[in-house]
Amino acid sequence: MELLEERIRKEGTVKPGQVLKVDSFINHQMDVKLFRAMAQQWKRDFADAGVNKIVTIEASGIGIAAIVGEEFDVPVVFAKKSQSINLDGSVYTAKIHSYTHQRDYDVIVSKKYVGPGDRILLIDDFMANGCAMNGLIDICETAGATVVGIGIAIEKGFQPGGADLRARGYRVDSLAIVESMDDATGRIEFRA
Amino acid sequence: MELLEERIRKEGTVKPGQVLKVDSFINHQMDVKLFRAMAQQWKRDFADAGVNKIVTIEASGIGIAAIVGEEFDVPVVFAKKSQSINLDGSVYTAKIHSYTHQRDYDVIVSKKYVGPGDRILLIDDFMANGCAMNGLIDICETAGATVVGIGIAIEKGFQPGGADLRARGYRVDSLAIVESMDDATGRIEFRA
Repeated sequence: MELLEERIRKEGTVKPGQVLKVDSFINHQMDVKLFRAMAQQWKRDFADAGVNKIVTIEASGIGIAAIVGEEFDVPVVFAKKSQSINLDGSVYTAKIHSYTHQRDYDVIVSKKYVGPGDRILLIDDFMANGCAMNGLIDICETAGATVVGIGIAIEKGFQPGGADLRARGYRVDSLAIVESMDDATGRIEFRA
Repeated sequence: MELLEERIRKEGTVKPGQVLKVDSFINHQMDVKLFRAMAQQWKRDFADAGVNKIVTIEASGIGIAAIVGEEFDVPVVFAKKSQSINLDGSVYTAKIHSYTHQRDYDVIVSKKYVGPGDRILLIDDFMANGCAMNGLIDICETAGATVVGIGIAIEKGFQPGGADLRARGYRVDSLAIVESMDDATGRIEFRA
């Protein structure tokens, strides 16, 4: 998606350790107009998928997913990162490893909000190793739901998450795929 | 706001310890159509306030704030709950006590995204003791910004947060104010 790639070129910064900072428009300050354009793109790309629910994971996915949910006119569920006393005990759980934060954490989704008959579009801001998406897939499929698509804003194409999920047959629609990036020069190359 | 109060009456459940669960439409599963109606209400209520930025706090505030940002056509910033290696060191910090989770946590906002000239509308899903809002106010005012309003979906009117903020001169616009609730009967009374 040209609009997103341009924005990453203009405002994204490459940090050591293959970190791409996009916190001026995606995951700290949010440009919700850009989110709307992204949501419209996914709506076109998944027009035939019969999506009836959006699932994402806190925290950075939530803003994007909210706009996507409105675009598809379906509810949005966000997986929570730890047990809250405001949730029932009746939850699906997955353990996710965060390379960014270098730790494991549990995510939970109430059994009330995913189940058989759900045709789910997963949404997130980033995908690298695919740990978060694999955790959400586990939860959705354990619930008997079908993951009909995965919409990612920025995929790190040089890490294995996207390729693995595509090889397993999932429809992964990443709006910008970074092929390589260099923190010395700041150069970012996108997959054509 | 009648629409929100009706929804709370219909789907909200009262738990011991004065906990109001609204996770079917606000803070786990999100009804983004309802969020749009709430955003439109705040847009009318704060039409004269010159809002140029929305600030909220992860995680439950983000979905609502994203829709509100689009309604006002301004950027949205969400305060993060812990230092991430994806953020610069240059941040404002506030310590917030969560009664729900019974612990203190730090929230941070990058100095790049709030500053003098900003006229900020704070948004959150809940207010009880006002700890989160007081933390965000500290951050915004330390940054030289002006908090022109505070939009809360559900205020627990029997706890002191809202009254304290109004007494200090802040414009607090809570779309539903719970006057009392009873976990034995499930009864929820709203402020007229």
